Amino acid sequence: MKLILDLDTGVDDALALSLALASPEAELIGVTAVFGNVARDLSARNSLALCALLGRPDVPVYRGCDRPRGAQEAYVATQEVIDIHGANGLGEVATPDAERVPEEQDAVSFIIDAVNTYGKDLVLVPTGPLTTIAAVLERDPSVAEKIGKIVLMGGALTVCGNVSPCAEANIANDPEAANIVFSSGAPITMIGLDVTHRTFLSLEEAASWKSSSKPAGALLADIATYYMLHEAAARERGGCVQHDPLAVATALDPSLVRTIELPLQVDTEGAFRGRTIGCNERLLTGPYVNVAVEVDAPRFERLFRERISALLDLPNNG
Amino acid sequence: MKLILDLDTGVDDALALSLALASPEAELIGVTAVFGNVARDLSARNSLALCALLGRPDVPVYRGCDRPRGAQEAYVATQEVIDIHGANGLGEVATPDAERVPEEQDAVSFIIDAVNTYGKDLVLVPTGPLTTIAAVLERDPSVAEKIGKIVLMGGALTVCGNVSPCAEANIANDPEAANIVFSSGAPITMIGLDVTHRTFLSLEEAASWKSSSKPAGALLADIATYYMLHEAAARERGGCVQHDPLAVATALDPSLVRTIELPLQVDTEGAFRGRTIGCNERLLTGPYVNVAVEVDAPRFERLFRERISALLDLPNNG
Repeated sequence: MKLILDLDTGVDDALALSLALASPEAELIGVTAVFGNVARDLSARNSLALCALLGRPDVPVYRGCDRPRGAQEAYVATQEVIDIHGANGLGEVATPDAERVPEEQDAVSFIIDAVNTYGKDLVLVPTGPLTTIAAVLERDPSVAEKIGKIVLMGGALTVCGNVSPCAEANIANDPEAANIVFSSGAPITMIGLDVTHRTFLSLEEAASWKSSSKPAGALLADIATYYMLHEAAARERGGCVQHDPLAVATALDPSLVRTIELPLQVDTEGAFRGRTIGCNERLLTGPYVNVAVEVDAPRFERLFRERISALLDLPNNG
Repeated sequence: MKLILDLDTGVDDALALSLALASPEAELIGVTAVFGNVARDLSARNSLALCALLGRPDVPVYRGCDRPRGAQEAYVATQEVIDIHGANGLGEVATPDAERVPEEQDAVSFIIDAVNTYGKDLVLVPTGPLTTIAAVLERDPSVAEKIGKIVLMGGALTVCGNVSPCAEANIANDPEAANIVFSSGAPITMIGLDVTHRTFLSLEEAASWKSSSKPAGALLADIATYYMLHEAAARERGGCVQHDPLAVATALDPSLVRTIELPLQVDTEGAFRGRTIGCNERLLTGPYVNVAVEVDAPRFERLFRERISALLDLPNNG
């Protein structure tokens, strides 16, 4: 399996990237950078730094969209996001700059080229706003039928949102882009709050990474810990849910979740803006999106623990 | 199986009642009347008339709640509802009054007595607002663990609502009552728009009932046809979705639907009032409600056709 991660590299993107790099069954052929938890260029910088830190300085990073569709100015992280991920997106933890710089080629053309090269063997995992992916599908609609699958983190179908009573952050950051993606006919699995809110990573588990002889251990532990101490629900529970890592894990092993199929739309108006919801009118016609509604959380958490332990040369205490 | 239907007897309640009376595996021990498609007393009158018309004048009908929790005045049907179900709730079709009158006993104590008598063999099917069922659970919370199950028509978890972008009519008519029911811990299956919108009854099939030698055939055909010609989506499609009959069918055969489990809550504020949605905070603790998210529509439609044909002494043209 060839893998492309489309990241807005904040804390859980960092853990998702770590999981991907720790997974031998997937070859990470590139990371694309989008705005979201951080601005686009900081996302690219963080992905390059993390790949270098995790012993994969060869992974290329491509710049995608830096703002929602139609926005006049490049996206800047809101204070709410900075409060959780830190101003640098990595929990105020200093990570060494990578030697590598972002590729000249843009993310949209990179993804289209990769689809044409690898076809059904290619899995794309977007964990931020879907702006770049919408641009891909607009520039080359044939991507929808050529690509292996898109496993995205975003949305909330059966549970409340996290930036409004109905909207999840990634979708809310560009509802129009999400509508383009969901109506494209591409084989999509949505990993939303429906399932990510059932997963958990404890403060203790993150702290255990500090025993690693690799510098990445302490840095990843500090990055995750910052998030756990600054995100309200995580602080209360002594650990956080695992949004982006679950999307990567599902790309590797679809059997981790149970899905339902329905034609998804994203509301763009008023109080409902950013809501992901089934479209009654298209119920019998589609196109359908697979939405994860249940997750084998213990199995996911075991997979995550085993892979990260291996990446950090730690004994698996699972 | 002992069955109680809690009906707000408009058009689809009439079809649901017909299906129940046509189903030998279930003994309909009583109908309770609630406001909704019509006022409470008209609901009782219609249920009595239909039972008599369908050869079951022995079925007792009990009066339940006549208004939402906390309302000052008895509920009166809105013009929107009258436009679809007719002012008499039965598509302006004249049905003979039954000789029988509603029971003296109220619906709340009837249901509690029935639960104590039949326990796990009792299935309750509410197809209107949940006001009476909430009153049952408040008066005797032990009903939640004693009852066989509650299979209710109402709500919209994964699709848009029908009285607002997020609210389905039955739940919207008394969100506070629905919250009491969903959080009671009773074994509940929610049959919402998620699945009812995938079912269908055609104008042709309803018209075919007119061939019956029984008076009920032409009357049921006219009742259903009125709805199909007055409800906007049904008029467009040449037939209607089957809300209440699917709840009865699922009570008879749970395998008709696929369900997911989650802790349901009903929003009570502002634009979201009446929304049925999973509660993130209770995802790992419950109590859980089974929500139907997929339906074997062809099998349901076949069951409905076969049962109604048998009831009307028609050849099954299935």
